[in-house]
Amino acid sequence: MELREAIAKRYATKRFDGRAVPPETIRELLDLIRWAPSGLNIQPWRIKVVSDPEIKRELHAATYEEPQILSCSHLLVFCADTDLAGLAERLIGRMETEGVPETTRTIVGEIAGEMRHMPAEAWKGYAVANTYLPAFLAQLVAKDMGFDSCLMTHFEPVEYSRILGLPAQLVPTILCPLGYAADQPLPKWRYGVDELLIP
Amino acid sequence: MELREAIAKRYATKRFDGRAVPPETIRELLDLIRWAPSGLNIQPWRIKVVSDPEIKRELHAATYEEPQILSCSHLLVFCADTDLAGLAERLIGRMETEGVPETTRTIVGEIAGEMRHMPAEAWKGYAVANTYLPAFLAQLVAKDMGFDSCLMTHFEPVEYSRILGLPAQLVPTILCPLGYAADQPLPKWRYGVDELLIP
Repeated sequence: MELREAIAKRYATKRFDGRAVPPETIRELLDLIRWAPSGLNIQPWRIKVVSDPEIKRELHAATYEEPQILSCSHLLVFCADTDLAGLAERLIGRMETEGVPETTRTIVGEIAGEMRHMPAEAWKGYAVANTYLPAFLAQLVAKDMGFDSCLMTHFEPVEYSRILGLPAQLVPTILCPLGYAADQPLPKWRYGVDELLIP
Repeated sequence: MELREAIAKRYATKRFDGRAVPPETIRELLDLIRWAPSGLNIQPWRIKVVSDPEIKRELHAATYEEPQILSCSHLLVFCADTDLAGLAERLIGRMETEGVPETTRTIVGEIAGEMRHMPAEAWKGYAVANTYLPAFLAQLVAKDMGFDSCLMTHFEPVEYSRILGLPAQLVPTILCPLGYAADQPLPKWRYGVDELLIP
């Protein structure tokens, strides 16, 4: 699908029809969204994929009972990885095995070293914002692949961590339920370009 | 351009060749990126477009002298609007004139009312993360339109606010210089799907 068509047709689906998206299709989507950008290519995100009805029922209660959680085929729970030191180490080690030139590794190492001095809260905010990028890509790619999605941030992250047994360094930030829509998109509107711009 | 091609070809351009992108092309890009999603459709972002060489020189110093700032055609400075009450009021007022049904307006009004009880820091983090979505879309759309871009978060936001004379409620969060690349993309790599997933 053309990028412009995906931008125009993507919408926040409120109800899915319960049909399952094939697991290999979900995997293809995951394979595409991992190309989202991040500062230094540090990729401070991890994804929990939920399709088990029992777990979805528990998560539903932790999402103010929004109908998408129960009716979707798969729920992607995007998590920010707040362990900056671990991420930097992993990245630099991996660049070596991937054959990235020494100069690039040195630059990344230096910047990652500087980033370690960021206050934990600043780093966390940065990691959280980065997770929105693959989540948004999931919406565009789902439309490209012929199904629907929704981005949701109104849920109880502490409850999500408990239900999913997430390690403490992973913070759930944004949800993307996937499936076939059982609703119709409402007409879209946005502020105009002139309202968007700072004069 | 196909969505998948834009995902694959978008890259963080380090140097631009200095050629100007026509203003009407920049406007078309802005017209497309405003369709990024946001919670409640609240659109907590504003954009300052900079092409004046004198201002770019000042911003260059506030961006650790990264070459993109001087060599780009246009610099988009994405700002988070932290005035939640103002945004909610504007949204609800505007929905009325846009002919959005009363029930939808009521729901949005209720949720926006609840959001007002969010701590200022939580709201700010949310607004910041949202600004990453139109910024990312700018990268994809630029590639679709035949030019290049970079996402940058390593800059001095307080200096940016001063140089651009931004009102206090607008916080610069992410930059997207636009132009024609004078470099070549490095080979891309990301962690594999299995490394991305939380088991």
